[in-house]
Amino acid sequence: MQLGKVIGNVWATRKEDDLKGLKFLVVKPELPEGTSKEDPFIAVDRIGAGVGDQVLVTRGGAAANMSTEPKLPIDALIIGIIDSIDVEKERGEG
Amino acid sequence: MQLGKVIGNVWATRKEDDLKGLKFLVVKPELPEGTSKEDPFIAVDRIGAGVGDQVLVTRGGAAANMSTEPKLPIDALIIGIIDSIDVEKERGEG
Amino acid sequence: MQLGKVIGNVWATRKEDDLKGLKFLVVKPELPEGTSKEDPFIAVDRIGAGVGDQVLVTRGGAAANMSTEPKLPIDALIIGIIDSIDVEKERGEG
Amino acid sequence: MQLGKVIGNVWATRKEDDLKGLKFLVVKPELPEGTSKEDPFIAVDRIGAGVGDQVLVTRGGAAANMSTEPKLPIDALIIGIIDSIDVEKERGEG
Amino acid sequence: MQLGKVIGNVWATRKEDDLKGLKFLVVKPELPEGTSKEDPFIAVDRIGAGVGDQVLVTRGGAAANMSTEPKLPIDALIIGIIDSIDVEKERGEG
Repeated sequence: MQLGKVIGNVWATRKEDDLKGLKFLVVKPELPEGTSKEDPFIAVDRIGAGVGDQVLVTRGGAAANMSTEPKLPIDALIIGIIDSIDVEKERGEG
Repeated sequence: MQLGKVIGNVWATRKEDDLKGLKFLVVKPELPEGTSKEDPFIAVDRIGAGVGDQVLVTRGGAAANMSTEPKLPIDALIIGIIDSIDVEKERGEG
Repeated sequence: MQLGKVIGNVWATRKEDDLKGLKFLVVKPELPEGTSKEDPFIAVDRIGAGVGDQVLVTRGGAAANMSTEPKLPIDALIIGIIDSIDVEKERGEG
Repeated sequence: MQLGKVIGNVWATRKEDDLKGLKFLVVKPELPEGTSKEDPFIAVDRIGAGVGDQVLVTRGGAAANMSTEPKLPIDALIIGIIDSIDVEKERGEG
Repeated sequence: MQLGKVIGNVWATRKEDDLKGLKFLVVKPELPEGTSKEDPFIAVDRIGAGVGDQVLVTRGGAAANMSTEPKLPIDALIIGIIDSIDVEKERGEG
């Protein structure tokens, strides 16, 4: 999974039928420590994430493994809103 | 998902049997703000997108999760035509 | 999907059982306009493509969505032989 | 699969329902010999890996192929804790 | 699919239950002609490949489409051992 910050919304009235009602957010990739050079992308949100939230995102085919629906044609899903990240400082590897 | 602009069409008479009748469009990747350096690619369209439209595209295995058909061997599907994108200006992160 | 040109063949006698009889071709990625910097890769062909043909290729998990077989462990499938590509010249975007 | 070292933990109370109880670790990619330039990412662990362990990670849609659960929306799974890696020195290729 | 050369082995005693007994090899990516700049990765082998063999590898979700087992959490599978590769020299494209 990938970390990111929600930075916006996307609206699309005309879309594949199965996707009616889904919320699409713009996510800017982040790293556990510092910034990412990856491009922003669009992810589906079902857990109430909003602009400014740091989120955990699943990308690729697995994003469609959502519990209540049939498999949808989506390739990015916000699966969690981050409480905290704890990264060990590197010292004496291995 | 990824934003893009439809810039052309692809015709292929000889193809895998299950793909007869599908429309293939050339999509140039775009970012929520500004241009993308990614290469153009080919996506299936079932919602009536045309040249000049800004679209939302699902790539990878999930593109095959289309409602009415069995799973097809396609790896990019136009899932929406963009009405608007709203991106927050960065100020006071977090 | 991705455009490419067939530039060769690969032979492998010893292989996963389900893959007996499949044809493996070397494909050089191309763009709708101009050349691609991506590396050549190997794709399965079931529609009679040959060296010199410009083809449309599905990559990743969806390549295994072939109609008549069970799902096979392949990640690239030639799905069409290109008749023509029509790309709009950029002028007055949007 | 990809090698990596576990360097931290991620906590997210609010998440997709199916993911309650899963452990999310920060993994720094490694190569069989030497360091990797790839960005750290977040992976699910069910085999008891901890900070400092060198692990084998499956990424993408296959990460969801876990034995006991239905398919979950996760795209990285720690599948093994490395005992040893044995790489041949290059000499007289082929 | 991707070409590569087997350059080593990986051992992991503690792993996801479904993966007991599988052989994990280190594969160095190769191109049909010349060397690749891609990083080595780890692939499952079930066809008896060994160090020094040139192999054909399926990566991503499709690697889990193995005939005899349920779908496993693996993202790279050696599907063939290369006998020969035949690439046309470029002359008079199209």
